[in-house]
Amino acid sequence: MDVTHQAAAVIGQVREKKPLVHHLTNYVTVNDCANVALAIGASPVMADDPAEVEEMISHAAALVLNIGTLNSRTIESMLIAGKKAAASGKPVIFDPVGVGATTLRTHTAQQIIREVRPAVIRGNMSEIKMLAGLDAGIRGVDSTADEQGSEAIARELSHRLGCVIAITGKIDVIAQGDKLCLIRNGHLMLTGITGSGCMTTSLVGCCCGAVDDLFAATVAGVAVMGIAGEIAQKKLKAGDGQGIFRMRLFDAVSLMQPDTLLHHGKIH
Amino acid sequence: MDVTHQAAAVIGQVREKKPLVHHLTNYVTVNDCANVALAIGASPVMADDPAEVEEMISHAAALVLNIGTLNSRTIESMLIAGKKAAASGKPVIFDPVGVGATTLRTHTAQQIIREVRPAVIRGNMSEIKMLAGLDAGIRGVDSTADEQGSEAIARELSHRLGCVIAITGKIDVIAQGDKLCLIRNGHLMLTGITGSGCMTTSLVGCCCGAVDDLFAATVAGVAVMGIAGEIAQKKLKAGDGQGIFRMRLFDAVSLMQPDTLLHHGKIH
Amino acid sequence: MDVTHQAAAVIGQVREKKPLVHHLTNYVTVNDCANVALAIGASPVMADDPAEVEEMISHAAALVLNIGTLNSRTIESMLIAGKKAAASGKPVIFDPVGVGATTLRTHTAQQIIREVRPAVIRGNMSEIKMLAGLDAGIRGVDSTADEQGSEAIARELSHRLGCVIAITGKIDVIAQGDKLCLIRNGHLMLTGITGSGCMTTSLVGCCCGAVDDLFAATVAGVAVMGIAGEIAQKKLKAGDGQGIFRMRLFDAVSLMQPDTLLHHGKIH
Repeated sequence: MDVTHQAAAVIGQVREKKPLVHHLTNYVTVNDCANVALAIGASPVMADDPAEVEEMISHAAALVLNIGTLNSRTIESMLIAGKKAAASGKPVIFDPVGVGATTLRTHTAQQIIREVRPAVIRGNMSEIKMLAGLDAGIRGVDSTADEQGSEAIARELSHRLGCVIAITGKIDVIAQGDKLCLIRNGHLMLTGITGSGCMTTSLVGCCCGAVDDLFAATVAGVAVMGIAGEIAQKKLKAGDGQGIFRMRLFDAVSLMQPDTLLHHGKIH
Repeated sequence: MDVTHQAAAVIGQVREKKPLVHHLTNYVTVNDCANVALAIGASPVMADDPAEVEEMISHAAALVLNIGTLNSRTIESMLIAGKKAAASGKPVIFDPVGVGATTLRTHTAQQIIREVRPAVIRGNMSEIKMLAGLDAGIRGVDSTADEQGSEAIARELSHRLGCVIAITGKIDVIAQGDKLCLIRNGHLMLTGITGSGCMTTSLVGCCCGAVDDLFAATVAGVAVMGIAGEIAQKKLKAGDGQGIFRMRLFDAVSLMQPDTLLHHGKIH
Repeated sequence: MDVTHQAAAVIGQVREKKPLVHHLTNYVTVNDCANVALAIGASPVMADDPAEVEEMISHAAALVLNIGTLNSRTIESMLIAGKKAAASGKPVIFDPVGVGATTLRTHTAQQIIREVRPAVIRGNMSEIKMLAGLDAGIRGVDSTADEQGSEAIARELSHRLGCVIAITGKIDVIAQGDKLCLIRNGHLMLTGITGSGCMTTSLVGCCCGAVDDLFAATVAGVAVMGIAGEIAQKKLKAGDGQGIFRMRLFDAVSLMQPDTLLHHGKIH
């Protein structure tokens, strides 16, 4: 079974198992993340107090950590929840939003990687490069890295951290050790709304909560967002803009089935 | 006048009086709650700092407490605001989101019930059963309780706590002492978006802020969401999904009039 | 070049320069603010922890401070970020949401004005009157102040605080010293959704991040929201309500070009 068929099967598993996915995420796009998780068939929960996150993890199938609007209270919660999830064998999906922009973000991302050992990290090229450069030696990679650069970074970081790495952008790159996958879905309008990155991470979390193969799950989550962007854009009529596009995006995710991935996925 | 006509009249009162409804609610669906309150004709406010909630209550006609993303700071604010509202004779509507899932939620819900004495509690079956079981003896009720089970629990808890109890689900049950009402509106798509429960509680808050009869107000608030769900679903065209449904839901609430309740309400 | 042409040119500059606009804003409408900033072509960021706001400001072209859901932690962050931005010559746009409703809001607004010296303040009539009355002597102005009253208050406050004042309402008034501008765009449906005020402030922030002329930038930001409201309303079909209107509003902002302002602007 090739990776496209595996990813398609993951969508079916999410709709069947309805995994509970715990989120510690930012308040900018939290509503979008909850709605996209429901749209793909999962069950989102967003508790973030240090006093309850550990207990909440016991009900969850996966945990999403997103540092978009981190603060001292939620950093503590992320570490507690992350360690508990990891110790329970539940996948932790980490979105290092804006790492490198401030020292707080950089230190927090390093701490999460070191202490939680996420199962999947998803970011854009500059975020993943920052993580790669910080941790060892790819520093100095050209910021307009071409596709081959992305592949090398994803592969190297995956080996080094022992996790799945997803770099999303015009072409998405997903690596797990020596396994590598490129996805050429998506539409430029996805960059014109807030939350497309965060929602992709949530979708990856939903997929990882439903199956054991985290590589296929990450491919599925990333592909769903790209394909939904394409379908949403095709539905637009003259005079439609980013507002209707955004609603069509949720439409497309809610109607996504294994077959949709088989027909629209540009996964290699 | 039967309860359907009473509930219809409540909608007219909300649109006329435009009550200010203070919310201490979660950051996942807070935007939805604000928009649904405006759509029904009320005026929402969402201040949550302990230093200002008491003063804000003095301007408000009702208070919504929702523990969806509670934390130590907002728990303190909820207790301050709740006590002030209760002491001022303003109705407090309590949504015990996720009670039972963590000790923090369970303890906070118990504390709010004990110290604030809410006028209305709205939850789903498992949340209300948790409250009922905790407080006394209905523990052990089958989790797939049938309609009669819901009725008994709602009635018993209403008597015990001296407040209106609303259990929402496929069939909604509202009890105040010996008064009981069933609502058979709604659509399955409401379970596919985040916030339909929170928004229902906000709508109940808006209705309770406009009239003295809290039983009729609760029936009205719950019925508005169910009817809006039906209207929204009927507006969908082939290829529409959860995104457009969600916008149509706000459309339907914003166009809701007393007559809409009379024509569509399945209230008994 | 008259102010309409200047404002139109600002829109072109925002789309060309894509300024990074840092927001410290409320959690009710933060997602709307991020989406409207993206829709006009800017790049929003919403970090709010005291430990990182100063560093984040170094990347930004402008700063929006909005006290809609202020708390002790974010007040501290607002003061740190505001002082840093002002000291770096970056415009601070202040939205005194609900000033006057509580002592905390009033004191915080006074402190921000005194210590940060915002470049632009945008509020509704009652908020701006509160600021004007607090600071000196316009107290007692009739709350149903007519247009002339608004003009006098805006002009006086602008002189006194040395900043641009924007009062938005049925007719928007923008003053910078002796310069004054009235905008007659907008639609009543804008009052039926949450966030139209906050989004206007964000749009002003995006415009101020792209050009030096803060008067023209404020006019542009305010005009964009009013015009978008008109365009959105005209797109509605029978049976559409506030939900679809809201999406059409984002559509209209995302399609807004300098020419749109020239054709639809009622700016004098």
